[in-house]
Amino acid sequence: MKSPKLTINAARLEQDFNELAEIGATVDGGVSRLALSNEDLLARAWFADRLDAAGLHMRDDDAGNLSGVLMCGGPKARTLILGSHLDSVPNGGRYDGSIGVLAALECARVIKAAGLKLRVNLEVINFTDEEGCWQSLFGSRGLTGNLHENYTIDKDADYGPFRAALFRAGIRPADVANARRDPKTVAGYLELHIEQGYRLDRDGVEIGVVSGIVGRATHQVIFHGQASHSGTTERERRRDALLGASQFIVLAHELWRDRYPEGVFTCGNLQVGPGAFNIIPNETRLTIECRHPDADTLAQMQDEILDLARQQAAAHGLFFTSRRMAQMPAVNLDDQVIGAIEQACELCQASHTRLISYAGHDAQMMTGFTPSGMIFVPSVGGISHSPREFTHWEHVVKGANVMLQTILLLAKRL
Amino acid sequence: MKSPKLTINAARLEQDFNELAEIGATVDGGVSRLALSNEDLLARAWFADRLDAAGLHMRDDDAGNLSGVLMCGGPKARTLILGSHLDSVPNGGRYDGSIGVLAALECARVIKAAGLKLRVNLEVINFTDEEGCWQSLFGSRGLTGNLHENYTIDKDADYGPFRAALFRAGIRPADVANARRDPKTVAGYLELHIEQGYRLDRDGVEIGVVSGIVGRATHQVIFHGQASHSGTTERERRRDALLGASQFIVLAHELWRDRYPEGVFTCGNLQVGPGAFNIIPNETRLTIECRHPDADTLAQMQDEILDLARQQAAAHGLFFTSRRMAQMPAVNLDDQVIGAIEQACELCQASHTRLISYAGHDAQMMTGFTPSGMIFVPSVGGISHSPREFTHWEHVVKGANVMLQTILLLAKRL
Repeated sequence: MKSPKLTINAARLEQDFNELAEIGATVDGGVSRLALSNEDLLARAWFADRLDAAGLHMRDDDAGNLSGVLMCGGPKARTLILGSHLDSVPNGGRYDGSIGVLAALECARVIKAAGLKLRVNLEVINFTDEEGCWQSLFGSRGLTGNLHENYTIDKDADYGPFRAALFRAGIRPADVANARRDPKTVAGYLELHIEQGYRLDRDGVEIGVVSGIVGRATHQVIFHGQASHSGTTERERRRDALLGASQFIVLAHELWRDRYPEGVFTCGNLQVGPGAFNIIPNETRLTIECRHPDADTLAQMQDEILDLARQQAAAHGLFFTSRRMAQMPAVNLDDQVIGAIEQACELCQASHTRLISYAGHDAQMMTGFTPSGMIFVPSVGGISHSPREFTHWEHVVKGANVMLQTILLLAKRL
Repeated sequence: MKSPKLTINAARLEQDFNELAEIGATVDGGVSRLALSNEDLLARAWFADRLDAAGLHMRDDDAGNLSGVLMCGGPKARTLILGSHLDSVPNGGRYDGSIGVLAALECARVIKAAGLKLRVNLEVINFTDEEGCWQSLFGSRGLTGNLHENYTIDKDADYGPFRAALFRAGIRPADVANARRDPKTVAGYLELHIEQGYRLDRDGVEIGVVSGIVGRATHQVIFHGQASHSGTTERERRRDALLGASQFIVLAHELWRDRYPEGVFTCGNLQVGPGAFNIIPNETRLTIECRHPDADTLAQMQDEILDLARQQAAAHGLFFTSRRMAQMPAVNLDDQVIGAIEQACELCQASHTRLISYAGHDAQMMTGFTPSGMIFVPSVGGISHSPREFTHWEHVVKGANVMLQTILLLAKRL
């Protein structure tokens, strides 16, 4: 086995990484670059400068995606898209999204400097609002033709701030559908990302080759009870919306453990009304999320959990309503791309394993639109969406080099 | 048995009731007159007009209590205080507090109009912030010498809004201790109130003669976990502050049912941080409340419930902190006043029974300061602190007549 001749410039990548981490840096050592915020707009401006300095052709689209293209010269050449996102969750980590965009840029710079003539254009892209501060996967929805103006309009919610933020970022809600590309012009999609789980770190494996991404469904669940005086309402006459919700949360976690060990259940938020210490709660609003790598099982898991909520509502004398907030189908990534990543790992002498992503990614939208793949690098302790998110720098470099080799392989094959 | 000659003017009382219910009326048919709010200040102004129209001597004190006094003429005469509160919980009912103040006013008007010469002054009082929007029993704490400026100052909380509200209502925090009366000048305290429970309504009894009021302890309990990505954090590595809190709530209700059936446990509020659908909760703040008619058992019940919270925190890998927010001891009401109320019930041919109040009242502060008693009228379905709070008008009238006769009896005896 011979080592690859072309490698990325690790020092240059690290300098970019450190500069970017300053934008929206938090006191805890994390970053807050919520999509369309001042910090996100600053990060985009910085990124535009980097694309310009790299001599790439800049482009943007009506969904706010910002790209630099390395043209191969062929008039009908298709484009291999490389990217991720620069936005973050509130007080999130410095690696999530960032390393994918920066490694893509570094690969394009190396290939340009080497004067390689590929059969495809390379497009380094920053997708808008991957994290869903306003609408998850906004940019990749737009590029793949899955975004419509009605994503920014809803009778049940005040979308005014969202629309204002879009306008401020130069995105016109009426035009977002125009971001759609013709799939014939696209050769494929490749994304480097931190695992955000702890399997690679635990097993000492350098590269995760993502075989699929879990499906995800989010529901708002409301238990409606009866407000009454805490001191004078006998136990058997209470209709306590918080007690019913608490019992549901406990039982839903047991259901997850016992029946859906491959899935994930989370209740990340709960609000109580009226919320006074001396009034029995009359309303509890929960946001629940189910994830599963198998689409049918995900549907079944959702149904059982909503049934459980209905049963617990009845058992506590409560009414129950629910509303689906979001749904992302489970996807399998492209076999040819997976094969190229594994071959690139061999070329780079990187240990690797296939795994399922339990987090959503822009690759989830890109799959079905174009052959797509993802390269994971280890997250220490599996911590992500936290300032404590950390990946050893040599793993970032290894991942970027695997990406570079994968690009070279795919450019010949796709 | 002869019927009493003197009775209240039910139509006049009802007109007052309807006028008052307009102040802070909510669309649901309830009232929101939070202490020191615009609505509360409007209700006080309206009440001052009524006192004035009734020809009573108006007085107020440094805790914002507002009274009208019917002087008996004796230069050293003591005062029998009659009252309740005009403030409400958010979107509460129209009867809670209001009927006590209005019935007291009506009794004073009838006695004045009849030209009766009593041995005591009668003082119709509206106590400030009974419900505890800012500080429960604020007014009766002040009158009984249990209020100090430090109730409005606390290092752990921003009491600025409380102090601002006090100033706006004409109450100077530095002066609240001056509201203290000399107990030698006070003959007793009598309060008419809705039961807020359903025992009288269920048993078809017209009047509840309150023998005691439960003790109450409120704690803030915080579970501290670890924020992490909902999709990628394995079940066994989660430190989910909401799951631990939910389990605690369920088990605390079981503990109440199994070990403290005479007591009350409530969790009326819960707040989750950071509260995003895709982040494991890292903090859950609960407000819990224990009530029990026996002081020692209340202490034991609190200890066991806090121990349970500590155990559940440990079982879920969470840290645990708690802080006592409020504590009101259990009290027994005065035997002589209880006897007078029962005798008045006989005079009015009202069915009656003794019962414990599971709600706190200003009478709880007044007991120990002066001989105190409470008259309960039935709450339909036991509903209170809700727009659905309702008491049949004939029961309000019956209660006011029992109050009138009790005043006449106590004026001779105390």
